[in-house]
Amino acid sequence: MKIGIIGLGLIGGSLAISLRNRKFADYFYGFDINADHGKQALEIGFINEFVDLDTLIEKSDLIVIAIPVDKARKVVLSLLDKVKPNQIISDMGSTKSGICAEVKDHKNRKQYVASHPIAGTENSGPTAAIDNLFDTKITIICDKELSDPKAIEVIEKLYQTLNMRIIYMEAEEHDRHIAYVSHLSHITSFILGKTVLDLEKDEKNIFNMAGSGFESTVRLAKSSPAMWAPILEQNKKHLSVALDAYINNLQQFKKHIEEGNTYETYKLMSEVNEIRRVLNGIKPIK
Amino acid sequence: MKIGIIGLGLIGGSLAISLRNRKFADYFYGFDINADHGKQALEIGFINEFVDLDTLIEKSDLIVIAIPVDKARKVVLSLLDKVKPNQIISDMGSTKSGICAEVKDHKNRKQYVASHPIAGTENSGPTAAIDNLFDTKITIICDKELSDPKAIEVIEKLYQTLNMRIIYMEAEEHDRHIAYVSHLSHITSFILGKTVLDLEKDEKNIFNMAGSGFESTVRLAKSSPAMWAPILEQNKKHLSVALDAYINNLQQFKKHIEEGNTYETYKLMSEVNEIRRVLNGIKPIK
Repeated sequence: MKIGIIGLGLIGGSLAISLRNRKFADYFYGFDINADHGKQALEIGFINEFVDLDTLIEKSDLIVIAIPVDKARKVVLSLLDKVKPNQIISDMGSTKSGICAEVKDHKNRKQYVASHPIAGTENSGPTAAIDNLFDTKITIICDKELSDPKAIEVIEKLYQTLNMRIIYMEAEEHDRHIAYVSHLSHITSFILGKTVLDLEKDEKNIFNMAGSGFESTVRLAKSSPAMWAPILEQNKKHLSVALDAYINNLQQFKKHIEEGNTYETYKLMSEVNEIRRVLNGIKPIK
Repeated sequence: MKIGIIGLGLIGGSLAISLRNRKFADYFYGFDINADHGKQALEIGFINEFVDLDTLIEKSDLIVIAIPVDKARKVVLSLLDKVKPNQIISDMGSTKSGICAEVKDHKNRKQYVASHPIAGTENSGPTAAIDNLFDTKITIICDKELSDPKAIEVIEKLYQTLNMRIIYMEAEEHDRHIAYVSHLSHITSFILGKTVLDLEKDEKNIFNMAGSGFESTVRLAKSSPAMWAPILEQNKKHLSVALDAYINNLQQFKKHIEEGNTYETYKLMSEVNEIRRVLNGIKPIK
């Protein structure tokens, strides 16, 4: 099989590395609007050829879109316009309702599979790509019934090769849950980073006094804005609900602290400790 | 030297393990209100003897308090009442103004050293204790000039043995900075955990869809409420400022998202990415 990867960053690059190592495909075309990324991808060796978009579409059996979700929505229609009957398109974006609505009425809709591997790091670009990024993690396939069963089969095989567990969901449902368990934590992390940078005018105090706890909580604030700004834009409906709930909880907790109501802060923290048990189930494939 | 450790949890236990391995002291007395902790500490072997508080005070050259900050404030005065002229007392709590105010006018104030090693994990109890917990991290000694130089020297040697970098600060200044770079991130993490547990009525969705990003951001929400509730209580003045700033930033960011102002969300996240450079300086001892 020949794969064409659009977007040679952390996700596209890691995908190519793993699929190549595990012999899922024998030839990898790559396209990226950033020519330097093409050069780096060739140097690292996870693509065989850096080509223009038309060549990639022309020659790939499977086309994977791994670019920011605003760009993905734009490119997917022109891909569907151009694909031949046996070609398959999938994307790896973190929002699914928008792109699914975009392709809904396209005559070649069945050749597209909406998916979202829940994997990543705070790093970006081709040099951030790693093997094993996806292993043992979860991937979501959305609106399965709108895709050709043969296309679904190929994408399932791809994710099985990556050693991921596949869950099926409607696009809208995906966006709601992922707002809560992924997008919200990116926002709280970015805002923590902003607040501490604002309050600590002399950054040496952060440098000196921050421990591993702060480092862990603020890690996601290193993430790529080019990737995250469009995700937040596309998922604003669910994020608005999540942020309302978060801010409300925070204001309540702040009130307890200010009133010296230690019984309530203790009680809330004890209840939230439950997250340990819930998280212990996160990694289902060992 | 003989050390008496009051509180045989993560901090007291890790301290005993490291000081024993590095031969800083040759005998370790331990006290804990929880007798099971005493049993576990003896089994693990990081104390020589589990004793009552009076015996510990009677026999130790150096007494280290490693219990929740509300309990520490209560015990420190009775320790100062009982110490002989050459004994030294220190504590490891995460708030310093309260305990320093408590001992301020005590006739034996000079025998007490206020300190705070910035180290920890989300786990607690004697079984959570590990060697190397403190290595390469920062410790703060507060109001140095109020302690006997000989006492300071011993505590400095203790922290050097732990391979920590020592910073000196006033207690009030310590509490303000640590509110920003440590206590605030514990709160945002707990509230993230609460919000997601509230929103996801079916916890299987957290189990299934949460990635490493959520896990990292919510890690601190596993921390001990018995340790954290009194810390938040004692540091409410600075936390109130920090939480106001955080909530204000979050509300602003939410407004940008809801208004589809992607330029502003992108701009803010790009600025906060700066935290990567700042954090790269966190670990000064290699």
